[in-house]
Amino acid sequence: MNADVKVLDEFLRFPSISTDSASRGHVNDCADWLVERLQKSGLDVEKHPTKGHPVVLAKNKHIEGRKTVMIYGHYDVQPVDPLELWDHPPFEPHIAGDRIYARGSTDNKGQLLAHLLGVEKTLAAGKDLPVNLTFLFEGEEEIGSPNLEPFLEEHRDSLLCDVVAISDTGMVAPGVPTFTYGLRGIACLEVLLKGPSTDLHSGIYGGTVANPATAVAQLAASLHEVASGRVQIDGFYDAVVPLEDWERQAWSNLPLDDAEMISLTGVSTLYGEADYTSLERTWGRPTAEVNGIGAGYQGEGSKTVIPAEAMLKLSFRLVPDQDPSQILAAAKAHLKAVCPPGISLELKMGHDGKPYKVDPHNDFGKAAQRALQATFGKEPALIREGGSIPIVQSFKDVLGADTLLLGLALPDCRAHAPNENFSLENFAAGIQLNQNLLESLGSC
Amino acid sequence: MNADVKVLDEFLRFPSISTDSASRGHVNDCADWLVERLQKSGLDVEKHPTKGHPVVLAKNKHIEGRKTVMIYGHYDVQPVDPLELWDHPPFEPHIAGDRIYARGSTDNKGQLLAHLLGVEKTLAAGKDLPVNLTFLFEGEEEIGSPNLEPFLEEHRDSLLCDVVAISDTGMVAPGVPTFTYGLRGIACLEVLLKGPSTDLHSGIYGGTVANPATAVAQLAASLHEVASGRVQIDGFYDAVVPLEDWERQAWSNLPLDDAEMISLTGVSTLYGEADYTSLERTWGRPTAEVNGIGAGYQGEGSKTVIPAEAMLKLSFRLVPDQDPSQILAAAKAHLKAVCPPGISLELKMGHDGKPYKVDPHNDFGKAAQRALQATFGKEPALIREGGSIPIVQSFKDVLGADTLLLGLALPDCRAHAPNENFSLENFAAGIQLNQNLLESLGSC
Repeated sequence: MNADVKVLDEFLRFPSISTDSASRGHVNDCADWLVERLQKSGLDVEKHPTKGHPVVLAKNKHIEGRKTVMIYGHYDVQPVDPLELWDHPPFEPHIAGDRIYARGSTDNKGQLLAHLLGVEKTLAAGKDLPVNLTFLFEGEEEIGSPNLEPFLEEHRDSLLCDVVAISDTGMVAPGVPTFTYGLRGIACLEVLLKGPSTDLHSGIYGGTVANPATAVAQLAASLHEVASGRVQIDGFYDAVVPLEDWERQAWSNLPLDDAEMISLTGVSTLYGEADYTSLERTWGRPTAEVNGIGAGYQGEGSKTVIPAEAMLKLSFRLVPDQDPSQILAAAKAHLKAVCPPGISLELKMGHDGKPYKVDPHNDFGKAAQRALQATFGKEPALIREGGSIPIVQSFKDVLGADTLLLGLALPDCRAHAPNENFSLENFAAGIQLNQNLLESLGSC
Repeated sequence: MNADVKVLDEFLRFPSISTDSASRGHVNDCADWLVERLQKSGLDVEKHPTKGHPVVLAKNKHIEGRKTVMIYGHYDVQPVDPLELWDHPPFEPHIAGDRIYARGSTDNKGQLLAHLLGVEKTLAAGKDLPVNLTFLFEGEEEIGSPNLEPFLEEHRDSLLCDVVAISDTGMVAPGVPTFTYGLRGIACLEVLLKGPSTDLHSGIYGGTVANPATAVAQLAASLHEVASGRVQIDGFYDAVVPLEDWERQAWSNLPLDDAEMISLTGVSTLYGEADYTSLERTWGRPTAEVNGIGAGYQGEGSKTVIPAEAMLKLSFRLVPDQDPSQILAAAKAHLKAVCPPGISLELKMGHDGKPYKVDPHNDFGKAAQRALQATFGKEPALIREGGSIPIVQSFKDVLGADTLLLGLALPDCRAHAPNENFSLENFAAGIQLNQNLLESLGSC
């Protein structure tokens, strides 16, 4: 294990699961570890408490006349269940071949740390950075960054910058540098259904009361037309900007095909909205997904019960120019309209974030692509992505800055899933990319 | 606590949950407790192991020329979850007013024990029983009595009888003696849906693979037409015998109305098959119920995941002359036909039992009604019930005997649900009923 990987191993051992209130202390310990590391490398560091998890801020000495670059990352991670599907414990990093396996390895600790070590190495060599740098690391990305936009607003003057750079996206294939110019937005909704005041015997009462377990299925099933794969919420597609011809053309030439998508996901066949390719469906079209559904008896054997309650967790992935709050309002109206008699609904808005798109051909975009080319020795692919980084829109809204997305995640990194992993080659390349990027942006 | 209630309290403390393999020892301890009690009362007792839980058999000395009566009961109970909704621990009986609260209090330990104590008291008074009696107590009713029919077949000669009596059904209202002449059958089905080989990030892959959480909702939702409340499986109603006019008339005069059904269940409004009253829907019409549905993240907060799997537990309540195996075959064909592309199904048949109906006006039926009238001082109501006691059909098939159902459960007894309870007045009446019943059947 080289020294850099040893640092990564340390960082990955914190179970910094932001959505789990029991992990609160671990999230904070992880922030403290970053603070110490950043201080040692010679930066000015501030740890800011929020209503949730802390923000860690670090800067070199900012000098007038230089470009100001903010690099964003997040040190929180997704939950680990189903735990039994991990080959090794998720917070005990395991190296096999070129990969390090751990929760957060790709999303986002490995990529964040590559930038931190890139800067650390430049400074350790006695050189100044070619830009005014601000590191902004948060601990709430996986729960939708509820406190980051207020933080940006409160500290706006101190955070103003020319451009933001983030490595939290993917590469289309190993060795193919990738510049991401668009992201889907997200809007989450939790639904609680209530029927009888207590669980009922399905023999004694079956047939005469609405069953919340059936009703939750009816709500979830009403979201799609199965044949076309289209979302059936009124107005859902109204604001969607059609894909441009150059995008469809460029994406069709990428080294990503349906066979690889099938192999990566393990499905027997792909399924989605008619008239679009797989890449178009995931990068350029909106979705409605059931992330969780539950009611009644899920244990061993049978229990002939009509449950009193049922739950449903939904998320919508959005594309320009869909607005999260409009989509959530339409979804709520839809669910209320299809809810059967005898069932009451409680609807709880979850986190949301606007979709994002930037012109890949402006000066900063071209500088980022030069850094990618210098690091990987190949012309970068120009893509959009299906995931959401809601704060990218906040950087635009509050700071007026575009965001450059230079991802290091491989297609089989298993982000959010068991056996998440990060390529050690990309980790090393990421350290180099940080140095090339700051150089390239400094001379913009 | 009087001496009889003290015995009931003892019996209720065994957590004899038959579906839970971890409770196996408790189920056996409960059987041993019965064996000891029956031996002390002077009966000949046999404990028979099965592939599952034991059968306990007890007889007095059978004398030629007397009627032979079998009294059946079950000492196993339903699971207790959701545990947090119990006001007191389910296996620590709690008395408040006329009720004793515990899992199994009504279903079926309290009712079984009333018969046992009735016989015990007759014998303790130095009298002979007026009939040849066989007690048959099993520990697998709540999982569909998988080993009882083989047991009946194996011990057929020793079990032959003129009639069977069971107290495991309900009274239409407190103080109204009730004779049940029909039961619904049951057929259970478990469905496992598989999509991707692992949980997927719903941003990265959402839109291009079928989501098992959505698919399970589509399967469950396909079972009913919401507007009519009718089951949409092809052929589901083909074998259903229409309700007779005298039944619809008799039921419409019972002291049970929709307002009471709403109050018992706590729903805001009743819901079911169009053109039938609530009693007709629960006693005389078949159903398809979702007893359990689950997929994805059901914990605190959100997790934007496309789950690899989903599960569904279904049960169908059947009426004469529906056949469980035909209904399960139709349900399997239906589910396979509506399953979306990219999702594979594993279908596992659960327990089943035929629906049952007997003529309430034959000699034994009239004798049972006389015993009910003598015990409660009122003319009994003639009803059918929505629940299933599959072995009633087995008694008919294997032993050729009709079954008399003289239930002591009150409408608000919460069988299968948290805070299950049994009326102590009915417990005392049940002891008396046993003595009146054996007397009445003995003189048939």
